[in-house]
Amino acid sequence: MKVGFVGLGIMGGAMATNLLKAGFKLSIWNRSVDKCAPLVDLGATVAASPRVVAESSDVVVAMMATPAAVQLVRDGSEGIMAGLSAGKGYVDMSTVDADTSIMSAMLAHEKGALFLEAPVSGSRNPAEDATLLIMAAGDCELYDSSFPLLEKMGKKILFLGETGNAARMKLANNLVMCGMLTALSEGIALASGSGLDTAQFLEILDSGALSNPMFRLKGPLIVANKEFPAAFPLQLMQKDLRLALRLAEEVEQPLFATATINELYKAALAQGLGDEDSSAVSRVIRK
Amino acid sequence: MKVGFVGLGIMGGAMATNLLKAGFKLSIWNRSVDKCAPLVDLGATVAASPRVVAESSDVVVAMMATPAAVQLVRDGSEGIMAGLSAGKGYVDMSTVDADTSIMSAMLAHEKGALFLEAPVSGSRNPAEDATLLIMAAGDCELYDSSFPLLEKMGKKILFLGETGNAARMKLANNLVMCGMLTALSEGIALASGSGLDTAQFLEILDSGALSNPMFRLKGPLIVANKEFPAAFPLQLMQKDLRLALRLAEEVEQPLFATATINELYKAALAQGLGDEDSSAVSRVIRK
Amino acid sequence: MKVGFVGLGIMGGAMATNLLKAGFKLSIWNRSVDKCAPLVDLGATVAASPRVVAESSDVVVAMMATPAAVQLVRDGSEGIMAGLSAGKGYVDMSTVDADTSIMSAMLAHEKGALFLEAPVSGSRNPAEDATLLIMAAGDCELYDSSFPLLEKMGKKILFLGETGNAARMKLANNLVMCGMLTALSEGIALASGSGLDTAQFLEILDSGALSNPMFRLKGPLIVANKEFPAAFPLQLMQKDLRLALRLAEEVEQPLFATATINELYKAALAQGLGDEDSSAVSRVIRK
Amino acid sequence: MKVGFVGLGIMGGAMATNLLKAGFKLSIWNRSVDKCAPLVDLGATVAASPRVVAESSDVVVAMMATPAAVQLVRDGSEGIMAGLSAGKGYVDMSTVDADTSIMSAMLAHEKGALFLEAPVSGSRNPAEDATLLIMAAGDCELYDSSFPLLEKMGKKILFLGETGNAARMKLANNLVMCGMLTALSEGIALASGSGLDTAQFLEILDSGALSNPMFRLKGPLIVANKEFPAAFPLQLMQKDLRLALRLAEEVEQPLFATATINELYKAALAQGLGDEDSSAVSRVIRK
Repeated sequence: MKVGFVGLGIMGGAMATNLLKAGFKLSIWNRSVDKCAPLVDLGATVAASPRVVAESSDVVVAMMATPAAVQLVRDGSEGIMAGLSAGKGYVDMSTVDADTSIMSAMLAHEKGALFLEAPVSGSRNPAEDATLLIMAAGDCELYDSSFPLLEKMGKKILFLGETGNAARMKLANNLVMCGMLTALSEGIALASGSGLDTAQFLEILDSGALSNPMFRLKGPLIVANKEFPAAFPLQLMQKDLRLALRLAEEVEQPLFATATINELYKAALAQGLGDEDSSAVSRVIRK
Repeated sequence: MKVGFVGLGIMGGAMATNLLKAGFKLSIWNRSVDKCAPLVDLGATVAASPRVVAESSDVVVAMMATPAAVQLVRDGSEGIMAGLSAGKGYVDMSTVDADTSIMSAMLAHEKGALFLEAPVSGSRNPAEDATLLIMAAGDCELYDSSFPLLEKMGKKILFLGETGNAARMKLANNLVMCGMLTALSEGIALASGSGLDTAQFLEILDSGALSNPMFRLKGPLIVANKEFPAAFPLQLMQKDLRLALRLAEEVEQPLFATATINELYKAALAQGLGDEDSSAVSRVIRK
Repeated sequence: MKVGFVGLGIMGGAMATNLLKAGFKLSIWNRSVDKCAPLVDLGATVAASPRVVAESSDVVVAMMATPAAVQLVRDGSEGIMAGLSAGKGYVDMSTVDADTSIMSAMLAHEKGALFLEAPVSGSRNPAEDATLLIMAAGDCELYDSSFPLLEKMGKKILFLGETGNAARMKLANNLVMCGMLTALSEGIALASGSGLDTAQFLEILDSGALSNPMFRLKGPLIVANKEFPAAFPLQLMQKDLRLALRLAEEVEQPLFATATINELYKAALAQGLGDEDSSAVSRVIRK
Repeated sequence: MKVGFVGLGIMGGAMATNLLKAGFKLSIWNRSVDKCAPLVDLGATVAASPRVVAESSDVVVAMMATPAAVQLVRDGSEGIMAGLSAGKGYVDMSTVDADTSIMSAMLAHEKGALFLEAPVSGSRNPAEDATLLIMAAGDCELYDSSFPLLEKMGKKILFLGETGNAARMKLANNLVMCGMLTALSEGIALASGSGLDTAQFLEILDSGALSNPMFRLKGPLIVANKEFPAAFPLQLMQKDLRLALRLAEEVEQPLFATATINELYKAALAQGLGDEDSSAVSRVIRK
């Protein structure tokens, strides 16, 4: 199987490296060509454009930072689509919205090619260690044929069904994340307002069945109530809450708590906290 | 130091055993005397009443199941208070409300004795393994003098300040627990309603920063939506939400999400789910 | 029928005047005796204490400003209760909580007397014009026998059942009032935030089926967003919301909207708006 | 001024009649031609199509039932747009969404014509009596020049600014309506659950500052809890709540109460109440 890889940033570079180490032959492309050098040392071949990558590969993997970047390497005369043809596969591992994925699938199908959305959970270290969680959705034949690639990049690989399901799964996941951040923030607000020691509160939370990595990471920031360096900006989280609520409206599922939590996030946005971390919702919760 | 121990149920029996094994001399009492036998084999002396236990000890530890049971061994002519005198200490490790603890402290102080509330987090196994989390609050001199006892029963021991703080800490903790259960339930409702695979949803939640023991335990029950065996009955949890909201009103702390979550718990009560597990709130969330 | 009247403030003075004009003989008492003069001119007799009023009357009417004032004229050696005896009636028209009324009923019953709580809706002008709305609850025999009095003070008189029901009815009424004030505030916030003309918004609201006197009164204050002279202080309204939610908990009735609205009122309290009008909740709603 | 009138249903027929009686010359069109007869008797001329109406008039008024019907008479070779030219005016009095109005304005402007959206509040009787409330928005020159027409159809005429504002004003209005219906429903639920007499509750509400026509109309339906004949179907109301919340998100205005109320409406939809009256939200509120 000839493999193409487009997008060699922190994530994509590490993932392509793992494929090369596993013995795959790679045709690669990146906007700034200097990112290609370490991969060439491992045997990769640099192509002139995403189109050329697609023409010379059975399966093209893309790993871009944003939906706009996905469109940039996908569309146009030098894009991946221009090089796709019947029987080939396009695996987009970028994190994008369902609509972008559904459009990618439609364009690939018009060429007679297959499509798989396969966003990942995990950042730099899991990408380097090949321990990513990969959520795949779309054409199951392509999932099967590209599995040998995916298993060299992640430790847990799930097939979620039709294109768009990976994006939807992420909305449900982020809904839970916001619920937990809000619960933590309200708990800290009550503990603090009642004169309890908030450091002890966090210690107790971490000693029982509620213990989780996010509370360990965000709890001290919420207690300190000063800096909220953006791991995941609040305005993007609020957008996901909005999309989760729209999805819920489509399927007629009431979500009382999430609707209230969305208003707390909107209140945080209205107070100019959009660029801070999504845990900064605690700023509007503590009186 | 002469130590008394009143209340030898599953928890108290295991905790007293750990004290005996550590070399403490124990005067003990239990309503049904047969629970005393194994401890007598380890060197404990059975007293005729809680009063006699208190008379013959420097520090009396009590471990009862309910506030009513605490009053039963504490008050009356044969109760612990009747045997307390200046300089002695009363350590109540039962889980009770703040008012019960504050009353215990007042009664002990009237006798010139000291009081410590010291409820625990953890059940049978941690009690046997001496790995309980102990939340102590009240008279700090008694905390210091009884520390050699406490450290034989728990692995993490925190002093939370004035009497009542342990009960308040538990309210803040349970508020977070309800927030997490509701977030999990709404996430599962959205995933299920959108046609996503809920088992995969749980797997994904458990693969990242939100992963926690409670989700692993309750997630499958909520997905199955059938049996909710009561680890912590819903009606007790709703009572704690109500008390948390009252505490918040006293300190003028708005809690928008918790107030909404309390209504979901009330709706569950109104549907007759009070005796099921507190995770059965999911029954009113899923449409 | 010999009638007593205790409490001759703005409301009580006007109400007693109407009874005198209707031909009733009145024994009266007021803390500051100068308020009695105009009534004496109409034929009333001043008594030495509330006790004496009760002794010389078949039915004693009281109209005090607060629960504390009710206790002051009710209890003690010179209070109304000291003068009550079997067959007499005590009609308390003050606005008090259910617990105060229930205590009054119990005390009267111990004397063999009857009790009626009969708070009014309406202020100075309706008191003078005898157009008050009177909500009576308690002993129905006393309701029947005192009806000739009540109909000289109000234009609409309702019997609500057992003692406490008048207070409960008021909680349900105030719940609706808060819901309407919040709806108006959120509507104005959206209209204003969307660049609509808020004066036109109020005009349109007032031209259709939603038109009501409160919107006409409070709408312009909320739009101006400056002064909120307290007709009914926000902290008293929040207390009523709290009591309404407790009543709802007792009867297991979820109230999702009211619970959220209560948090808005709590947020207003936390911002120091407790002494302003209850419509000042709009201050925490408008971003 | 030559006037055209398209759409002669119950509303449009009555409005056109008022224009004829006021002395205006009318060119008219209606899908079923028999509706034209009574107007011809009053002097109107029937045209062959909406296009011909527009060609022969200075100002064309349209009064259609739905956005789809607006498009039907507006677009295509025989539509109003095909007959519009520079200097003419198009006044759409149908109730449509902001996007439909903005499209109408754009199409009219491409022809060099002016546009005014002018939806009305009020139904058959106010249309016949010329007592409608008219909310106009769009080109103010056209508002000025068509005012002599508008004042023959309504008693209150407001100019709200740019095209789309009339639709937005309606969302803010409906937000308040839902808030009031929910407050009424929760009040009735609490009164009923507490054993109060709900008929008395409605009577008391109607005796004070909260008194309004909608409560008089819907209160008895909610109390009876049986039939909710659709004056305004619940699913359309929920759509308006959704649009109001989206507008609020755009302008970063948190609306805590409305968000919760929207979930109640969604819960009602999920229970199959979409075709009942919007007051049927009470069905999911009462336990």
